[in-house]
Amino acid sequence: MVVGGDAGGMTAASQARRRRGPDDLAIVALERGHRVSYSACGIPYWIGGTVSTVDDLVTRTQQVFRDKYSIDVRPRHEAVGLDLDRREVLVRDHDGRREYRIGFDQLVLGTGATPVRPPLPGLDAPGVYGVQTLDDGEAVRAALDAGAHRAVVVGGGYIGLEMAEAFVQRGLDVTVVEAADAPMATLDPDMGGLVGDALQGMGIRLYCGEPVRAVDAGPGGVRAVLTTEREIPADLVVLGLGVRPNTALAADAGIRIGVTTGIVTDARMRTASHDGVWAAGDCVETVNRVSLSPVAIALGTHANKQGRVVGINVGGGYATFPGVVGTAVTKVCQLEVARTGLRERDADKAGFRYVTAVVRSTTRAGYFPGAQPISTKLIAEKRSGRLLGAQIVGREGAAKRIDVLATALWNEMTVEEIAGLDLSYAPPFAPVWDPVLIAARKAWDAVEADVAAEPH
Amino acid sequence: MVVGGDAGGMTAASQARRRRGPDDLAIVALERGHRVSYSACGIPYWIGGTVSTVDDLVTRTQQVFRDKYSIDVRPRHEAVGLDLDRREVLVRDHDGRREYRIGFDQLVLGTGATPVRPPLPGLDAPGVYGVQTLDDGEAVRAALDAGAHRAVVVGGGYIGLEMAEAFVQRGLDVTVVEAADAPMATLDPDMGGLVGDALQGMGIRLYCGEPVRAVDAGPGGVRAVLTTEREIPADLVVLGLGVRPNTALAADAGIRIGVTTGIVTDARMRTASHDGVWAAGDCVETVNRVSLSPVAIALGTHANKQGRVVGINVGGGYATFPGVVGTAVTKVCQLEVARTGLRERDADKAGFRYVTAVVRSTTRAGYFPGAQPISTKLIAEKRSGRLLGAQIVGREGAAKRIDVLATALWNEMTVEEIAGLDLSYAPPFAPVWDPVLIAARKAWDAVEADVAAEPH
Repeated sequence: MVVGGDAGGMTAASQARRRRGPDDLAIVALERGHRVSYSACGIPYWIGGTVSTVDDLVTRTQQVFRDKYSIDVRPRHEAVGLDLDRREVLVRDHDGRREYRIGFDQLVLGTGATPVRPPLPGLDAPGVYGVQTLDDGEAVRAALDAGAHRAVVVGGGYIGLEMAEAFVQRGLDVTVVEAADAPMATLDPDMGGLVGDALQGMGIRLYCGEPVRAVDAGPGGVRAVLTTEREIPADLVVLGLGVRPNTALAADAGIRIGVTTGIVTDARMRTASHDGVWAAGDCVETVNRVSLSPVAIALGTHANKQGRVVGINVGGGYATFPGVVGTAVTKVCQLEVARTGLRERDADKAGFRYVTAVVRSTTRAGYFPGAQPISTKLIAEKRSGRLLGAQIVGREGAAKRIDVLATALWNEMTVEEIAGLDLSYAPPFAPVWDPVLIAARKAWDAVEADVAAEPH
Repeated sequence: MVVGGDAGGMTAASQARRRRGPDDLAIVALERGHRVSYSACGIPYWIGGTVSTVDDLVTRTQQVFRDKYSIDVRPRHEAVGLDLDRREVLVRDHDGRREYRIGFDQLVLGTGATPVRPPLPGLDAPGVYGVQTLDDGEAVRAALDAGAHRAVVVGGGYIGLEMAEAFVQRGLDVTVVEAADAPMATLDPDMGGLVGDALQGMGIRLYCGEPVRAVDAGPGGVRAVLTTEREIPADLVVLGLGVRPNTALAADAGIRIGVTTGIVTDARMRTASHDGVWAAGDCVETVNRVSLSPVAIALGTHANKQGRVVGINVGGGYATFPGVVGTAVTKVCQLEVARTGLRERDADKAGFRYVTAVVRSTTRAGYFPGAQPISTKLIAEKRSGRLLGAQIVGREGAAKRIDVLATALWNEMTVEEIAGLDLSYAPPFAPVWDPVLIAARKAWDAVEADVAAEPH
């Protein structure tokens, strides 16, 4: 029995099926929305028109799951209650307008995440949208088709900025409102500032340091977003305030929830509290391998990996999920933004002392056509020089370099070691010193200068 | 005293200068060519017209070295003899047509590499060019300006294919002749075959499995290249048969040369045989951290790193060069090719037993515009699953992923661990399973299948 038909749940279902045939294991998958197994991360590109149809975002259709995988997928069937003693799920069939109970031996929770909606006036009005499900995406598209032309995005994080780009591409008048002093709070403010400068160059209006107080809405829809500083006319409001694990169902059933509000699991993705109950995707908490703290991160790549782990284990194999280092990447028009590991504030919180280095370089040899600017920030532990985090803001070809630093973090490399790495070089791909190497050298210089400055 | 005015030598010189002022350390740099401190790797792009002038390839001019670094740079002055007992260099001044001796305390050898020229008839004729120095590049440009329109590239490695692209861009009729069964012998033949297919799609004529027997040349220049199979008319022949360390000067002076024919150094890049004599760049041998064997690799990025190490040490600091894993990348028209670590034959030679996996994927989410094909091959040690090598052939956005695998090799990661890495994901940058992760998963499957197939 799988609850939630997207990345975590359906990957678990199909992986389990590969190991156990239909005669051995019956699989039912409940999904409260209209579609299963889609790329939620692709929604902004569909809204912006980069991806032409919603079908492009669907990895496997309900029919494929039924016909090829013998998985009984039930869209618009929502799990509304769990009875873990009787091992039953209470299901609401939204189209059939009825409820029924269904038993299980193994239960997989893939209930995803829900957008954060602070308790502000008007934030639940029609015309205020999240961007988590294809149904959300269809609602936004419908609003655009109905003539919305002034969009306000509340929150300048990944989803918010991707939606801002989508609206720019659709020719809308776009404003982003951010409570913090810089957009992209998943970066340090100095790197977020670079993002802010670039956004304004793209014609996106950006108000930072202005918490939203209310959305002014009437029966005809939204009229304006009110911040602490101003009133911004709006036909359409998108919430980009982040998401939180959707765990009401699990919590009600007594499944253990962690400090991050995500479901707590063991290494095999079994819930910490209940045997035969598994969880994967945006609804779980995992561990950051650098801070060694629990984190809840909504990201399709983790959901897929975790779902695969669940499916292998339910299928009788053995697999574990090793945690994350906090890697993320996004693209806003021509701007590429990436991060991994700890920000300065995370490092402080985790008890590290550190030095930082920021370097500007180019994505290709400086003389090679198409060389683009790239700014790389590294955070390294004082004295040891161990890499703690990295952030990149640049243009085409910049962001994917974060993967080298994520791999370095994973292996607890020092910035001195990183500076010696044998990274690929040819003029169309990198300067003779790759930006990653230059940044590591500078960070190591900072480590040494810091040691030299210590009292002896 | 620096012998050789490109990456290894001049990086050493400028780094030493940063640590020791002109009153403390006088630096003379001898260069037999016309220019110092240039990007030899950029020569094909200059010949092809992607880079417009030769000046773009010069990192720092002779004047900058003199005026800003107080380094006495002497182009067209060639070191023709070393007397290590008297600590003197015998110098030939090509323009002044004289010879003189000059003393030193510390000597840095950065004599680079010379193209391999097998002893075949006609291979030293006018009209047959190497591509190592700016002077070589100018000679090729002059031949093009003089009307050459049929180019034959002997050898289908990095330099050969980059030159083939350059000639295609200049509108020439281009043939590549390769003795092996596939181009790009730095890859395994299966991956090299993918490169061959792509080359032919770009209008480059490719003859594999045909060793060159001779170049037919007369007083007016070259007329044809003769292989074991055919005669190929040619106005211009470029040698892409690889290079070897240029160590005649060092060897004559009794400096220890290794099995690779490169100069042997210690970790600080001091020659193994002589105190106060250092070496950096294409003329040295280093160690491959995977095979633990000595290797000689001509690559600007190593030369720069090694030169920096020499300069820091000569300047009174402490630095070491950590060896390489054999990473390389190139671009031929739209095709990107990258490799790191061991090929199958290298793994055999090093005594490893291994499994392989090749996967085809896309550089971005499959539904995202601009998603390009990428083929990734991994070689993993039997049983342990330790990564031994990786190769990538694909289109835009493919090749730089090799850096993740180079970093994984550096850290002796297993393919199972690599499959768990937290690599960046967003639709414009990767499928939800990055090609690197898919390849690692498949390689781990191969490791497990191999274990399962063992007799118990």
